[in-house]
Amino acid sequence: MTGHILALCGGVGGAKLAFGLARLLPPDRLTIAVNTGDDFEHLGLHVSPDIDTVVYTLARLSDRVRGWGLAGETWAFMSALGRLGGETWFNLGDTDLAMHVLRTQRLRDGETLSRITATLGAALGLSHAIVPMSDQPVRTVMDTDVGRLPFQRYFVGEQCRPVVRAIHFEGAAQASPSDALAQALSRQDLAGVIICPSNPYLSVDPILAVPGVRSALERVAAPIVAVSPIIGGAALKGPAAKLMAELGVTPSATAVARHYQGLLSGLVIDTIDVGETAAIADLGIAVSATDAVMTDDGDRLRLAGETLDLVRALA
Amino acid sequence: MTGHILALCGGVGGAKLAFGLARLLPPDRLTIAVNTGDDFEHLGLHVSPDIDTVVYTLARLSDRVRGWGLAGETWAFMSALGRLGGETWFNLGDTDLAMHVLRTQRLRDGETLSRITATLGAALGLSHAIVPMSDQPVRTVMDTDVGRLPFQRYFVGEQCRPVVRAIHFEGAAQASPSDALAQALSRQDLAGVIICPSNPYLSVDPILAVPGVRSALERVAAPIVAVSPIIGGAALKGPAAKLMAELGVTPSATAVARHYQGLLSGLVIDTIDVGETAAIADLGIAVSATDAVMTDDGDRLRLAGETLDLVRALA
Repeated sequence: MTGHILALCGGVGGAKLAFGLARLLPPDRLTIAVNTGDDFEHLGLHVSPDIDTVVYTLARLSDRVRGWGLAGETWAFMSALGRLGGETWFNLGDTDLAMHVLRTQRLRDGETLSRITATLGAALGLSHAIVPMSDQPVRTVMDTDVGRLPFQRYFVGEQCRPVVRAIHFEGAAQASPSDALAQALSRQDLAGVIICPSNPYLSVDPILAVPGVRSALERVAAPIVAVSPIIGGAALKGPAAKLMAELGVTPSATAVARHYQGLLSGLVIDTIDVGETAAIADLGIAVSATDAVMTDDGDRLRLAGETLDLVRALA
Repeated sequence: MTGHILALCGGVGGAKLAFGLARLLPPDRLTIAVNTGDDFEHLGLHVSPDIDTVVYTLARLSDRVRGWGLAGETWAFMSALGRLGGETWFNLGDTDLAMHVLRTQRLRDGETLSRITATLGAALGLSHAIVPMSDQPVRTVMDTDVGRLPFQRYFVGEQCRPVVRAIHFEGAAQASPSDALAQALSRQDLAGVIICPSNPYLSVDPILAVPGVRSALERVAAPIVAVSPIIGGAALKGPAAKLMAELGVTPSATAVARHYQGLLSGLVIDTIDVGETAAIADLGIAVSATDAVMTDDGDRLRLAGETLDLVRALA
């Protein structure tokens, strides 16, 4: 297969597949567009959790045990912050802080999030393009049984406990795709779009909510293939299954297929869900069943390879 | 002695005497007004080095070996900052960062530096009033043989190597004393003003440059007593002696007395400089000679006590 691959990506699960894709594809053949709906201003710092997760994962700096943040991270800042009476509900590690401080300073100086992400990624030795979905602020907000909560308040502060009634992407209507995402979407040599196994509602929908992205995807001639983040009716990580249930959807690979219907030509599911193949095929979506759990680097490469295989098969 | 004491204070040396004063005087009898001419914006954070030195010293958190910053400090942030290509000429420790991040956030939210300093000091268990000289920005700028340098660029970045031709306090003309400093200066029960052994040019002159401070000191009925930071023709720490020489002044206790002439009624000098007693007395300034080197807490209390003795003797 030749041509360019565009990956749409959220946090941890998506970053793992992006890692595999970046191992299999040279930098000029891959664009990783990342959700920024989770971004927020905390303690006066601009935090971009999904971008950082992807950057740290590709740079092999992530903590694999804890599942977020940096390996070997220390917490002197948080400890001092608590002593000084600052807000401690969101953890910022000492090493991680450098990213937030530099990003915040450069945003204040007028640099775009795209450019900042590129230079900070390059400083960590990354050569693949990790790009924000947009350079304008889009903020995910949750309507819940305890009121309207900014995303991180729901996700970290409340540990996803509130029952979600609706999800909004504030600012999306005024945003536009980042230059790199827009360019990837309009490439003549676009060979495929891969929707990484990220939360469809919280990580991928914000990207699709940026004006022009969904319509561009609908026009794309190349296959669009997703990897299901729902395995055996549950999410490997995060609130996807709980959220789907609260929104009246039974969590399943089929529900993921239905969520992306109109965009997808293929879906990679776990073998445990192989019984759903016919239901998904009925939606006009080709299915590839495999071991979709990524435990180590080998899994990441294998699943990325199998996803690219499905893209190739559907071309 | 009853009544209130106002201490004017810069960084390390001044903070040591302030520590002693705070041990000897209850909170309602002491105001410590601190130089903010060294303050600067770094990496988008507002750093107040002298305030932090005084706060950390009074809270017994200072690193006594390194002479600045916090004991047990860690440097993961700086290491990450360097890796990301950020500016590393000014060290910000992981624990120290909490102070800068909180202060910056609260300044942006419109709180005064006075109020922020009070609440952060209280969070560290301090009950004495540590107040900035002003809530408006005053920035010390050095005219040197390599051009005009903001203070921290000269002091930390260039390690005081450039030859200083003149010192400016930008913004001073537009600043006013902080409420707490203004109130201390006009107290009916003001029993004395103590100029701590800080750099006269870099730490005390900025305070005197705030409109109204010098004239108020000239009107104060109570004694004004300084502790000489020059001992045996040298500064215990920092560039005071080098700076005096560059400005055409022979570094000595007498030169300190002359610098503050018109304000001082007394000067505490080291016994090594006792030969200067007559020259200082000729300026109309009473002299008390003692061991003016503060090595441990005992020295701090003793020197603070002897300084208060001179205030009392001159009342």
